[in-house]
Formats: sequence, structure tokens, C-alpha cells
Amino acid sequence: MLKNKDLLGIRELSKNEILYIIDNAKKYYHNNKITTKKKVLNNFTQINLFFENSTRTQVSFEIAGTLLGASVVNFPINNSSQSKGETLIDLAATLNSMTPDILVIRHPNSGAVQLISEKVICPVINAGDGNHEHPTQALLDILTIKKRIGRIEDLNIAICGDITHSRVARSNIFCHRKLGNKIRVIGPKTLIPKDIDKLGVQVFYNMVDGLRNIDVVMVLRLQKERMDGGYFSSEREYFHLYGLDDRKMKYAKASAIIMHPGPMNRGVEIDGDLADNIDKSVITMQVEAGLAIRMSVLELLLKKKIDNV
Amino acid sequence: MLKNKDLLGIRELSKNEILYIIDNAKKYYHNNKITTKKKVLNNFTQINLFFENSTRTQVSFEIAGTLLGASVVNFPINNSSQSKGETLIDLAATLNSMTPDILVIRHPNSGAVQLISEKVICPVINAGDGNHEHPTQALLDILTIKKRIGRIEDLNIAICGDITHSRVARSNIFCHRKLGNKIRVIGPKTLIPKDIDKLGVQVFYNMVDGLRNIDVVMVLRLQKERMDGGYFSSEREYFHLYGLDDRKMKYAKASAIIMHPGPMNRGVEIDGDLADNIDKSVITMQVEAGLAIRMSVLELLLKKKIDNV
Amino acid sequence: MLKNKDLLGIRELSKNEILYIIDNAKKYYHNNKITTKKKVLNNFTQINLFFENSTRTQVSFEIAGTLLGASVVNFPINNSSQSKGETLIDLAATLNSMTPDILVIRHPNSGAVQLISEKVICPVINAGDGNHEHPTQALLDILTIKKRIGRIEDLNIAICGDITHSRVARSNIFCHRKLGNKIRVIGPKTLIPKDIDKLGVQVFYNMVDGLRNIDVVMVLRLQKERMDGGYFSSEREYFHLYGLDDRKMKYAKASAIIMHPGPMNRGVEIDGDLADNIDKSVITMQVEAGLAIRMSVLELLLKKKIDNV
Repeated sequence: MLKNKDLLGIRELSKNEILYIIDNAKKYYHNNKITTKKKVLNNFTQINLFFENSTRTQVSFEIAGTLLGASVVNFPINNSSQSKGETLIDLAATLNSMTPDILVIRHPNSGAVQLISEKVICPVINAGDGNHEHPTQALLDILTIKKRIGRIEDLNIAICGDITHSRVARSNIFCHRKLGNKIRVIGPKTLIPKDIDKLGVQVFYNMVDGLRNIDVVMVLRLQKERMDGGYFSSEREYFHLYGLDDRKMKYAKASAIIMHPGPMNRGVEIDGDLADNIDKSVITMQVEAGLAIRMSVLELLLKKKIDNV
Repeated sequence: MLKNKDLLGIRELSKNEILYIIDNAKKYYHNNKITTKKKVLNNFTQINLFFENSTRTQVSFEIAGTLLGASVVNFPINNSSQSKGETLIDLAATLNSMTPDILVIRHPNSGAVQLISEKVICPVINAGDGNHEHPTQALLDILTIKKRIGRIEDLNIAICGDITHSRVARSNIFCHRKLGNKIRVIGPKTLIPKDIDKLGVQVFYNMVDGLRNIDVVMVLRLQKERMDGGYFSSEREYFHLYGLDDRKMKYAKASAIIMHPGPMNRGVEIDGDLADNIDKSVITMQVEAGLAIRMSVLELLLKKKIDNV
Repeated sequence: MLKNKDLLGIRELSKNEILYIIDNAKKYYHNNKITTKKKVLNNFTQINLFFENSTRTQVSFEIAGTLLGASVVNFPINNSSQSKGETLIDLAATLNSMTPDILVIRHPNSGAVQLISEKVICPVINAGDGNHEHPTQALLDILTIKKRIGRIEDLNIAICGDITHSRVARSNIFCHRKLGNKIRVIGPKTLIPKDIDKLGVQVFYNMVDGLRNIDVVMVLRLQKERMDGGYFSSEREYFHLYGLDDRKMKYAKASAIIMHPGPMNRGVEIDGDLADNIDKSVITMQVEAGLAIRMSVLELLLKKKIDNV
């Protein structure tokens, strides 16, 4: 059983809980294919509440719920009373009264998902909040590593790019620390927080040193709003220094795999041909593992309710 | 049985029909919780057609239909052929040919929902049209009163705020008149229609006189577009004169309850702490009652078809 | 069985395949009413991916899938990673990993739907791509003709209006050629491609000559962006010369029927009263036939998978 009502972050999970979610996801992801046995969420209502655009994650949660038999309702935010000045807490009270069985929420502000979760009875899944956490992304990364490398411990992980603004980086750092893996972050000084070493990671400012002996290279998406000169001099220079390409990959282990949370900026943070090289890149596997993880989390957070039906 | 094909307004309902809808809703709202026994709308298609933004009402109708087993399709208006200059009547003909079992429509123009209803075979529910009617809001208010006070007759009702532009006020006035309740409207002269007394209500221009001996205080949302000086001098002055707070509530009965159709402007038409005071405020109950009422109306308008399946 | 994995255009279908789809659609469209016998797409996931606004077609595909029991997910494009600069091919890879059973795609660029179809395992239905093809529109037109005239061969067809920019015209031309019908295109020189006769059609620049002895008049929608002087002098002149009205209809056979893919510009390409004349106009029938055709195509493209379940 999961200890908490909600999945707000990896930080709050124990190592056993992480392994439990991964293990439970395997039944939905067999031989690298999504399989569903039973509609455990039949007659359950899932509300998706995305305050930030994120087609991939939203559709992934929608399909995950649907495959389990849930009725999925997308709460249309653009049209919403948010534009009428309603507070987040009033919205939470309204949502709670809509009697959903589970809520999936993305919000641009760190902590906003937790705020809502405290005001509703049902479980809440954080689908990304500000620069804070994106727990299902880290979990699907783990499942992908498990499927591809065969183990999720005793690994050297490198996370490359814009660490400062990345909830994906944070959730992965927490996750791999709990699993006992060694983590390096690599990127320009302007995109790495000064006190990041307190999270138990090694910091590198160049790819050659950082990638040496690495098993898993996680490339982060570079947000367009960082590309206009404030953080580094040009997109081209960024690719030269930090974009993952064959030349830089040679410093990692020969067996190393490449991950990216998508969507990619080809030619910015990653070379297009390398991203398509299925001997190394597991990027599309991540999407499929994402479905399995979300199905697993939806099921486990509702386990008591499922067992009582 | 309901007499008409559609639910366009409270005005067209008899007292017995109102009681019938309320009574039927109770099976979906037991011990203040939504419960569903059977999927009476299995294999039915419900189309939601919202020409005006209204997340709460749209999601409420979507969840209500879903809980009854209907397939709910949201007709995307922004993307629609309305922007291509199609007439409302051509759209109605198209919708009719899509063979929905029921249509739920919101439109900024009074009468537009009726216009569409005349061109389609299936039942139509008015989810709010201009300044005309919003029948399910009045019905859910009645169900809330029934659950909380225990009776829906022999009551003194006060509706406070922007009466002129409120279909919620109109539907509630029609509803409580049919139930034989006494109704007062309270607000600034600029926001109360001159001939409102013809609807059988008493008019008050100050809260102290208006709230005396009242059982139910309905606070209306103040639309932002009324807040810029044309209707009253300032938001702050509005709150001072007409915003419901503890001081003004003292004039109502000690047992009086507070209702608001949401979303609230805290500190404008209602004091935030008072809105959260669950001894008096039934605002979140209204949302849950809304689900039950919409389930009841969906079922009753489709009763013949359900019985024939 | 259909030969190809996808339905990308009428051009790739054999005459027998066209007849097969039409014939299969009849079980869903009996006595001019939509009927569904069994939920053949139960547990199937259909993703709608509309890069162009088209409420009618999108809702038609959504209802068609829903009536067959599929879970239909609308991929929200405005919110999508397209705005984040993701390539179409990366999007296709992501979609593929979402493990849909079938994809329905509309895209403003000719060929874009085919591009995606080559990157995904599941069947893809082209719901309109640029000026290329809109196959289900041509098929629903055939089903409507079959239902109304009783035969789909030995017919004289006239397609009127903006031929150059119309995928509806192209798909219908391919379709009626395969059925052996005679096809005329009628419109101003500025809106008819110079080499259109290579597709096996006769070209007319005036309605009087073009409509003589015609069984079926297909009126095309005039896009607003063609109405501002570049293609013809004014909307009014267009209606005078090419707008279908009673006067021009007299030149067609007395039994001739009128079709329009919708939404209509009344008073531009067609007279409003004539569009409403149910002795001649079959425009609302087309919408209903559209549902049946889409149900038929969804079923046939998934036939192998259905039989294997």
C-alpha cells in the first residue's frame, strides 16, 4: 500500500513505495507492449485539471485512465472561472463537490497541487507543478531503465541541461538518490542552482568530464524562453557545448542509454540522428512506460476503494 | 412525467413537475453524497454545447451524464463553424442529424436555446441563456434548501445583488413563486429592473431592511463588467452596502442559510470568512446538489426512451 | 477486407472497396436512422488529432467511435507541443507509443496525414488534408445518393464552385470516376485548376450549360478568404453567377438532388430557401450518412483486430 493519500512528489515516497509502483506497472507493460487485464477503475471518475499546456502528459493520463475503465473528464481551464478571479481554494472546494474519485493536476506554481490536494477528499496526482516535482516522469524513467538495462540500482546517471527550471531533474534526483544511484548534473553555470550539491549530486560544467562512465544520459528540454541570450550566448553555442551528439556520447559507457522527457528540440539539446538511434535512444519507450506508470499509480492510489467495491 | 420535451425554464414547469424533479434527484443524493444505482443512460449520447464559458456547469453536466452511463461529447464552440458564419438554425439541423439523445446548451442570447430546441428532435436542457433562465440552478438551490432546512415551502427568500443581469435570479423567482414562498430582491437601484415587482417580489434597496426575518439568503455573483463605475461607485462601496457579512447577516433569522451560485468574488458580494462558515454557508452543498439535479433532469427528460429500451 | 492499413484517400481504393464500405455502412443507417447493434470497438482507443478547426467532422468521428463503443480521446492541438516546435515525425512517434487502436487526423498540409501514417502501427483515417483528399466525405456523399436516388452508377454529377482548393471535390471526382459516373466541374476560371480535365472531368464556366441533365448537384463551400476580390469581383456577383438557386436548378433534371458538405454560406454559394427545400436538398441526410460511413470505416479498418479479440 502507498502511505499517502496523494502522489505529490518522489521526495515523499519511500524506496519500497517506488519499487512497488514500478513492480505494479509491469503487468500493464509486458514485452514492451501495453496490456490491460481488467477494468479496475470501472465506474470511477477521473478529472484532469491542467493549468499549463501539456498535451503529452494530459493525453497519457487520459488514456491511462480510459484503459482502466475510468470516465475521464478534462476540466477546461482556459474557459474556467480562474479567469473570473476565483481562488484556487474555492476551485478545490468545487472540484471536491463534483465527487471525483481521483484528480490529476498540473499547475505552473510550485506547491499549488499540494494546496488543492489538502482541500479535496480524493487522491491527487501531481502531473507537474512549477519547478518542484513531476513524479510520474521520474517513475516512468525508472521503468524504462528497468526494461532496457535490467536493473535500477548501481547506476551512474547524468542529467544534462537546464537543471534550475526542471521539475523533471528534481524528481529524478530524489528518485535515484533513494535507489542509491550516483547522479551527476551537467550544464552551464547559469542553468544549475548553486546549492544543488546539497541534494547529493555531483556538478559538472562540461559534458566530456560529466559523461565519463555514465550508464544513463538524461537530456532535458531547453525551454524556448531560455534561448534568447540571457542564459547563454546562442542556441548554436548551446548545442556545441551541451547538445548531446555522437562525439560527446563516446565519453559515456558504450552501453549507455539516452532519455528525454519530450518534446525534443532537435539540434538544440540533442542531435536529431542520435535521438533516432534506437540502439541508444529509449525516448519512445519512455512514452509507453509512461502509460504503464500512470495506470499503476491510478490503481494504487485507488486500491482501497477498488477493493471495497 | 414531464409535460414538455425540453427543460428551457422554470416558468414552463408546474409546481408538481418541480417537486417531481427534486424528489427524483434524492435517489442520487443520499446522506449528502452522490450515489448512482444504475446506468440508466447506457448507450445514450449527450452533447454539451456551450457558447459561453462556464466550466462549473459544463463539467457538472458532463459528470452527471457520465455517472448515468451516457457518452458525453463536448461540442467545441471556439473551433466551430460559428466562426465560419453558419446560422444557428443550420447548426441545429447538423446537431439533429448527429442523432444525440439529449442536448445541453448554454448561449449568451436569451431565447437562443429555445430556437435550437425547436429544430431538434431530442430533448434540450437550457444550461443558461442570456438574462433569461438557468433552470437547473434554481432546482439545485431547492434541493439544497430541502436537504438543509427540511422544507421548501413557507420560506422567506432574499436574492441579493445584480438582479437585472441574472438568469439565476429569474429562475429562482419563478421557482419560489410556484412553491408559494415570499421573495425579496435586494440591491442597488441600478441593478434592479424597474418592473420586477410584476414577478411578485418585494424590492429593497438596503440589506438591513431586506434581510429581516429571512430564511434563505441568495447572494448573486457580481460580474466584473459591472464593477467599473457605471453601476455603483466602487467595489469597496459595493461590499460596504451590499456585500454579505456577519453584521448584515444578524438581521436574517438565526437559522438562515447562505447560498451562492459560484464562482464567488470574496470581499465583493460576500465576505470570505462568512462564505467558509459551514454553519451558515451551503455553497459547496449546492455544487453536489447540482450533480443530483442534473442527473434527475437527464433521466426524466429521457424517461420514455429509457423505458422503451 | 480493405487492402491498405489506412484510409488516406479515395484514389487508393478500388471500386469494390468503395462498394464494400458503403454496403457495410447500411447496417448502421437503416430507414434513414442511425442504428447500432453491437459495440464492436469496445476496449478500443481512438485518438482524434485535428490540426485544423472542424467541429462537424471531429464530432462526427467522435460520435461514430462512441456509438461503436470505442474510447475517444481528442488530442488538444492548440495546447500541444506543436507550439513548442516539435516535428510532426516526433509527434507521430509519441502518438504511436500512446498505443491507440486507430487515429483520425486532419491537417492543413496535403500529405501530412500520410507522413504520420507511415510512422504509426495503427490504422489512420484521413479526415481532410490540405487540398488533397477527404475520403469519408466522398463516401458519405455516395451513401446519401444511394439512399435517395437508389443507385450510385449511371449518374451525371456536377460539382460547383471552388474546385481548386477543395479536397471534397477531388475525393468526389476520384470516387465517381471509379463508379463510372460522368462528372462536370462548374465554376469561375479563377477557381478551376487548368489541368483538371486530366482527372476525367468536363469543365464548364457557367451553370446553365453545366447543370443540364444533371442528377446530382454538389455545391462547394466558398471559403471566406476567397471572397475578398482576388478570385471574383464580389460575393453578390458570385451568387448571381454561381450561387445555386431555383432559376439555375431548372436546368438540371427535375429529379436532381442538391448536396453541400457544410457549413453553408446562405446567399453566397446557395440560396437559403433552396437549401431548406427537402424535396431537393439532402444536406442534413449527408450529416447522418456521415456517421454511418465513419462507423463503417472505423469497423473495417479494425476488422482483423476485432476478429482476433
